Amino acid sequence: MNFARVSKVLAAFVFLFSLAQAGPLILALNEPPTPDVHPVAGLGWSMGIGLAVATLLGLAGRKAPPEFFRRETICVAGIAWFLASMLGAIPFQWSGLLPDSADAMFESTSGLTTCGGTVLGTAGYPTPELTPPSLLLWRALLQWLGGIGIVLIFVSLMPSMGVASKQLLTAESVGVNSEGYQPRIRSQARGVALVYLSLTAACTSLLMLVGSMSFFEAICHAFTAMATGGFSTRSNVGLFHDLGVEVVLTVFMFLGGMSFVAMAAAARDGWRGCRDLLRGGELRLYATFTVLAIAIVTVELMRAGMPFGEALRQSSFNVVSMLSCCGYATADFHAWPALCLIVIWTCTMVGGCTGSAAGGIKQVRLLVCIRLLAYSLRQFVRPKIVERLRLDGEVLSASTISSILSVVLLWLLTVLVGGMVLALDQRLSFIGALSASASMLGNCGPAMVMVDPSFAGHLTVIGESVPALGPNIGPLAGYGELHGTTKLIMCFQMVLGRLELLTLLALFTPSFWRR
Amino acid sequence: MNFARVSKVLAAFVFLFSLAQAGPLILALNEPPTPDVHPVAGLGWSMGIGLAVATLLGLAGRKAPPEFFRRETICVAGIAWFLASMLGAIPFQWSGLLPDSADAMFESTSGLTTCGGTVLGTAGYPTPELTPPSLLLWRALLQWLGGIGIVLIFVSLMPSMGVASKQLLTAESVGVNSEGYQPRIRSQARGVALVYLSLTAACTSLLMLVGSMSFFEAICHAFTAMATGGFSTRSNVGLFHDLGVEVVLTVFMFLGGMSFVAMAAAARDGWRGCRDLLRGGELRLYATFTVLAIAIVTVELMRAGMPFGEALRQSSFNVVSMLSCCGYATADFHAWPALCLIVIWTCTMVGGCTGSAAGGIKQVRLLVCIRLLAYSLRQFVRPKIVERLRLDGEVLSASTISSILSVVLLWLLTVLVGGMVLALDQRLSFIGALSASASMLGNCGPAMVMVDPSFAGHLTVIGESVPALGPNIGPLAGYGELHGTTKLIMCFQMVLGRLELLTLLALFTPSFWRR
Repeated sequence: MNFARVSKVLAAFVFLFSLAQAGPLILALNEPPTPDVHPVAGLGWSMGIGLAVATLLGLAGRKAPPEFFRRETICVAGIAWFLASMLGAIPFQWSGLLPDSADAMFESTSGLTTCGGTVLGTAGYPTPELTPPSLLLWRALLQWLGGIGIVLIFVSLMPSMGVASKQLLTAESVGVNSEGYQPRIRSQARGVALVYLSLTAACTSLLMLVGSMSFFEAICHAFTAMATGGFSTRSNVGLFHDLGVEVVLTVFMFLGGMSFVAMAAAARDGWRGCRDLLRGGELRLYATFTVLAIAIVTVELMRAGMPFGEALRQSSFNVVSMLSCCGYATADFHAWPALCLIVIWTCTMVGGCTGSAAGGIKQVRLLVCIRLLAYSLRQFVRPKIVERLRLDGEVLSASTISSILSVVLLWLLTVLVGGMVLALDQRLSFIGALSASASMLGNCGPAMVMVDPSFAGHLTVIGESVPALGPNIGPLAGYGELHGTTKLIMCFQMVLGRLELLTLLALFTPSFWRR
Repeated sequence: MNFARVSKVLAAFVFLFSLAQAGPLILALNEPPTPDVHPVAGLGWSMGIGLAVATLLGLAGRKAPPEFFRRETICVAGIAWFLASMLGAIPFQWSGLLPDSADAMFESTSGLTTCGGTVLGTAGYPTPELTPPSLLLWRALLQWLGGIGIVLIFVSLMPSMGVASKQLLTAESVGVNSEGYQPRIRSQARGVALVYLSLTAACTSLLMLVGSMSFFEAICHAFTAMATGGFSTRSNVGLFHDLGVEVVLTVFMFLGGMSFVAMAAAARDGWRGCRDLLRGGELRLYATFTVLAIAIVTVELMRAGMPFGEALRQSSFNVVSMLSCCGYATADFHAWPALCLIVIWTCTMVGGCTGSAAGGIKQVRLLVCIRLLAYSLRQFVRPKIVERLRLDGEVLSASTISSILSVVLLWLLTVLVGGMVLALDQRLSFIGALSASASMLGNCGPAMVMVDPSFAGHLTVIGESVPALGPNIGPLAGYGELHGTTKLIMCFQMVLGRLELLTLLALFTPSFWRR
């Protein structure tokens, strides 16, 4: 481990991160002053501190050699996320919007990891409608930066993350054991960034054209939809009462859950690339999963008495939102029938495609699991048959399979253990603790009601998009009421899930730090 | 597939099963007559029909060759369970105790699979206290037969069930590919039956000596504790208000969750055998898991205000009951704090050891998962290190690992899909459907409350062992209120879990029936 190299990369990273605050700062300078909240002070201090930290890190790393290896990438990824979360919290805290450190840290981490859980509108904090636009822009920008950040880290760490897919593992990426593979990664990163930018621009325009959003609202939502983040400029997206907005956001959330790496490859290769993209097993499963989930939820909502059109609208938006781990909501769906909830929470656990900004276990791993289960059944019936598992035409080796399965198991285990730790906060119910754990780890955002059964009566009924007033952590509410410690544990869970567990856990093993 | 061979074995099986009803029938003949329920009629008809079915099957199989192969074992296992459940339901239905077929079938299947969910005491049916003793004995006997039955099926199918452990896979059992391995299986089966009988006798005596049970109550509870079944002669075991009973049952439920195959081997080999037994990785994990779970639940109950002694008593009994998938309860623990519930439900999902009558995923599979996760983390940190996973000194091959993992994944997936199917019954809440699915598949018995939030207020408070009166499927209640179809789906789930999924699923693949 060469710490000079790590510092050098972190310096560049913090510099860019601080520079990004210029946008919200300019907006803040043009805002009418508010008595309680001072965005200029918060953003100004934050930029200043960020630039100072960048300078210090730059000095520490000025003698670093230019090469960069795998362990340093892992180290940078782990540290950068926490560092950025702390720096990103300063504007919230020092502006006076969220005076409590745990709340500011929660909001910032939730932004950067594209989780999307919020404390705004709960525990006496103003709702987004009452928050200065400059800070709303900073929230949205945090998610947009976090979204592209995780895809770029994925591009550099891909070979060792237990992922396999034709585009990712063979055509595009480099071998697991080759180190110092910068040129290829650079070109790939450029392609990914270009796709991300273009899609964000397209989303902004469409939200203004098809929907009736202002430029400010459109760009904030484009930032958070492409990053599958889920912060909105209103208490919830349902409050726009605009079918156009919902349709555009549904489409772009779905795109945000697709692999940017695969989309970049397709964009580069033109027609042939698009054909390859559409033939990929992961994308097909993602699409099938989406359609199936929407169909089940729609039918179940109709069984509960909702008319077809309304059921389809509610179910498409909220299912795609939870599957892509975005976390926007247009309904208080934790009051929906049990089957809807099971389907929606399955969506959240599985998540989008690898190489996207979505969270969860990821579709490709589900695909491998499904293939393995079918194979095991065949093997049980006919023990003497020998066959091989394939993915997009490539044979999966036994070690690849067991590495993929171990990430799936580790994910489920982490949700469970995380739920136990969160349950130490006795305000959370059984399902509140487990769903919050899954939501934080999957970077989704909403969880299920925190009971207090006395509040069960206050849940909003089907189809009405009025925020629930009881202290709950459901889709229309937030996390403000929880203990500070619980929120900090949740911050750790968000980063853990964002870095797909192993990258962060590796930092806690002694052998990682050994020569 | 030779159907004559299958018929021949089924004939012997049905003959023994019908003969077992002689005990309850003799008891029934000496009971005072009751106006509504006629056990003599139910048990008499059932024996008659059973013997007739056995004769027909015997005639169909009279020309069968003596050898018996793997596919026939699978076929017998699958068919026998459904056949016995139907025959076992006759005494309940034709005696007039449970006039509804779905209810009688549910009770019988729940008995035979050692699940232990009941309809008695709900939906207007009498509680066990008001049920004729002969039928209570038949309920207990069903579980005892089911318990030894599954261990014997395990002994014959072991090589192909994705299980690996020194005792089971190498020292004791036969190779995966050798067929016609009857002599060895016979000697093993004798040993297992002997251990099962001795433990049942010991449990009966201790319940009478240490606890204050009558012989009838003692033998009924010994039957259902050794089989980790969970049917009681009272509405719940807490109603005995007897610490002695609770301690003895806790010990024997724990023993019931241990491998009878390993215990038989230890008994045969004397001192050295016992040492090997205690050194086995699976048993150590099972013991550690038990102690840890009890400790967490005890502390959490104390945090909620329960005194230490009471907390330890409640937590030991109910944790061991749920971990061994027995399902007795002395408290309405679905009203306990969230952390207790998460721990208890983790216990139920994992279950006891392979080769026991317990349900769940099984400790050995958890052990392999834990080893694999630790290995994957080491591999991620140091990709160039090559090492092998071991269990009790044996190297686990890649195919063994992936076969074990696929059973774990299939288990989790089946719980999920089962929960979706059960949720079609809209009386079940999100957590009601999922916990019932896990409980049925794990052959545990109790699930969590079926909300109707209006009943949430009626839950019993911590420490009081009064049955909850609202329609719920919690530890002190039952399944009577659910739809008939839901109960039949649950019957299927119980058998599916009892046969560890693949054995039953194999029967539904076309290639199983091909030559």
